[in-house]
Amino acid sequence: MASNKSIIFKAVPDGYPVVGEHMELVTKEIDIENFSLNDGDILVKNHYISLDPYMRGKMRHPDVKSYTPAFEIGKVLDGRGIAIVVKSNNKKYQVGDYFVGLIGWEEYSHIPANIVSASIETLAKAIPKSKIPESYFLGLLGMPGLSGYVGLNKIGQPKKGETIFISAASGAVGQVVGQIAKIKGLRVIGSAGDDSKIKYLEEELKFDGAFNYKTCNTDEKLKELCPNGIDIYFDNVGGEILDIVLNHLNNFARVVACGMISQYNTNDHYGVKNLFQVVTKRLIIQGFIVSDHFQEMESFQKEMSEWLKQGKLKYKEDIVEGIQNAPQAFVNILTGKKFGKMIVKIC
Amino acid sequence: MASNKSIIFKAVPDGYPVVGEHMELVTKEIDIENFSLNDGDILVKNHYISLDPYMRGKMRHPDVKSYTPAFEIGKVLDGRGIAIVVKSNNKKYQVGDYFVGLIGWEEYSHIPANIVSASIETLAKAIPKSKIPESYFLGLLGMPGLSGYVGLNKIGQPKKGETIFISAASGAVGQVVGQIAKIKGLRVIGSAGDDSKIKYLEEELKFDGAFNYKTCNTDEKLKELCPNGIDIYFDNVGGEILDIVLNHLNNFARVVACGMISQYNTNDHYGVKNLFQVVTKRLIIQGFIVSDHFQEMESFQKEMSEWLKQGKLKYKEDIVEGIQNAPQAFVNILTGKKFGKMIVKIC
Repeated sequence: MASNKSIIFKAVPDGYPVVGEHMELVTKEIDIENFSLNDGDILVKNHYISLDPYMRGKMRHPDVKSYTPAFEIGKVLDGRGIAIVVKSNNKKYQVGDYFVGLIGWEEYSHIPANIVSASIETLAKAIPKSKIPESYFLGLLGMPGLSGYVGLNKIGQPKKGETIFISAASGAVGQVVGQIAKIKGLRVIGSAGDDSKIKYLEEELKFDGAFNYKTCNTDEKLKELCPNGIDIYFDNVGGEILDIVLNHLNNFARVVACGMISQYNTNDHYGVKNLFQVVTKRLIIQGFIVSDHFQEMESFQKEMSEWLKQGKLKYKEDIVEGIQNAPQAFVNILTGKKFGKMIVKIC
Repeated sequence: MASNKSIIFKAVPDGYPVVGEHMELVTKEIDIENFSLNDGDILVKNHYISLDPYMRGKMRHPDVKSYTPAFEIGKVLDGRGIAIVVKSNNKKYQVGDYFVGLIGWEEYSHIPANIVSASIETLAKAIPKSKIPESYFLGLLGMPGLSGYVGLNKIGQPKKGETIFISAASGAVGQVVGQIAKIKGLRVIGSAGDDSKIKYLEEELKFDGAFNYKTCNTDEKLKELCPNGIDIYFDNVGGEILDIVLNHLNNFARVVACGMISQYNTNDHYGVKNLFQVVTKRLIIQGFIVSDHFQEMESFQKEMSEWLKQGKLKYKEDIVEGIQNAPQAFVNILTGKKFGKMIVKIC
C-alpha cells in the first residue's frame, strides 16, 4: 500500500480560485500490487505536472461549453505531466517507460486506455535519449513551447526586421516566442509584471526592450520602445493591454491571440474600444489552440532541440515541490506571482 | 460660362456632420471654353457620385493618420463618380469619353493628371458597351460590389452549407454579400434598421432570415435564425452587434471586418467584451480595404456581369437628384435613413 496525495476540484470559483475552498488536498491509499487495470490501461507514478492558465477555463459549470471539458466537482484535477509506468495492461507501455500525457494532480494516476492512446509517445520516447532536463518536456519542448512556435510561425508570419511585442513575455509561452523571434531577426519587446522578470528578459533573453506594465504607462512605453510601430502582437493577456496595442500596430499587422489571462478570473470583462483599427489598418486577429496543431510536433521538436544544443534557447522554470503545493502554485500563475514556466515536481 | 454648384468641407464634425455647419453649398462659375488644363489633366461634367460611410473617416483633423487623406477645410469634398469628359489634355481621354474615378461633389470637376492616371479605365470603357444602368458602376459593379466580393471570398472563405450573418445587410455592400453567399449555397441571415429593408431582404433577395436590430433582440434573433451557429460574420457596423455575434460564432469562424459604421460618429467607442471567444473558438477577425484589392477587379467584373445577366443579382439604389442634396444624403447614410446604395445624380 502506498499513500496517494491528490488535489480535488471542490467548487466552481467566481473570481480567483481559493486554496481549500475550490481545490482541496485529499490523501488516499493505493494498492499498486493488486490494482486492477482494464485492457489498455496503465498505472503511473507521477514525476512532474504542468500548471497552466487554460486550466482556469476548466474550473467552470459543466453546462458552459468550451474547447476543453469542465473539471468535475469532487474529482481529481488533471493536466499534462510526465510519469513512469508502474503497472501496465497496454502493449505500447512497459513498466519503467516514460509516459507524457494527461495525469491527475496526484502522486499516482490510473490512466484509462483512451487517455493512454491520446498520449504523446514521441515525447515519451525522446526523454531518456535526450540530455535535456525532464521538466523541459512540459515547457520549452512541450505544449507551451509548441504554442509559441505555432502561434508565432503560422499566425504571426514573422519577417526579419519586423517588430514583435509580447505580453506575459517571461511566461511559459512568452519566453519561447521572444527567443525564436530574436533568432529570426525581429526586434523583440516584452512586458511582464515584475522588475526581476524585466531584468531577465533584457539581460538573459536579450530582448531589445521590456517594461513592467504595473509600474509603467504601457502606451508611452510602446511609443518609446517600438518607434516604428508593431508588426506582430503575441497576446497572452487580452483586455486593456490589447486595447492599447491596437493603436500601435502597423498596417497589415497580426495579433496572435494565444490567451487572455486578464479576462479569466472575472465576469466583468474589459471592453476593447479600439477595434475600428482592424479595418483601417487591415489587421488580422487570430486565435488558436495548441492541440489543433499536434501535427507540427515533429518539426518543432527537431528545430527547438537544435537551437537548444546551439545554446540559442534558455528556459526559466518555476518548480514547486510536492503536489500539496499545487493549488497555491496555480493561484500564483493567475495572479502573476510566479516567474517562468510553472511546474510541480511530484516525486 | 456655366454655373458650377459644389459642396465645400467647412468644418470637422465631432459627432454626426450637420448640413450647413460642416458641409456647405457654394455656387461658382466655370468658363469651360477657356479653362486651362496642364499636361495630363481633363475637365469633366459629373453624372453620378457615390456617397459612402468611409467618407466620414476623411472628415477629420489632418494630423490624425489613416488609410485615406483627410478632407481639406475649405475645399470641395470628393468621392468616386462617373463623368463625361468635356475637355482633355490627356491622350487616354477624348471629349465624350466616360471617366470613372475621383471627382468633386460638384457639377464640373477639374481632374489633375495624377488622379486621371489613378482612374479605373476598365470600368469607364465597360459602361457604353454594357446594357447595365450607369449608376451600377458605382455600386454593384463598383467599389461596394468589389468590397463584398473580395471580403466574402478572400476573408470569409465561404463553404456550401455554412451560415453567414451580415449586418447593414441592405446597404451598398451587404446586399452584394448576401446574394453571392446565396449563389454559393450558404444560409444567409441579415440585419438592418427598418422593416421595409427586412421585407426587401426576405422577399426580394431571398435571404433565409432577416431582422430589424432596432426593434428586435439581436441575441435572441441570432439564436432563432442561426440554430447551428454562425460560420462567417460580415461586419459592416462593429460595436454592440459584433460583441453579441462573437457569442454565436462557431469554432474556426471568420469575421470579415468591412466597416464599423456604429463607431464613426462618436469618440466614445463601444467596448467589445467578448473577445476571449477569439481564443476559445479559434476565430479570425480580419479587416480589409477595397483599394488593396483592385487586382481582383477583372475577375469580379466578369463573374458579377454574368450573374447579373442570368438574373441572379438585384441591386437596390437610393438615388438622390441634385448635388445640393448630397450633404443631407450623406447624413442619411450615417443615420441609416436611406435604403440601398446611396448615389447622387448630378445631371
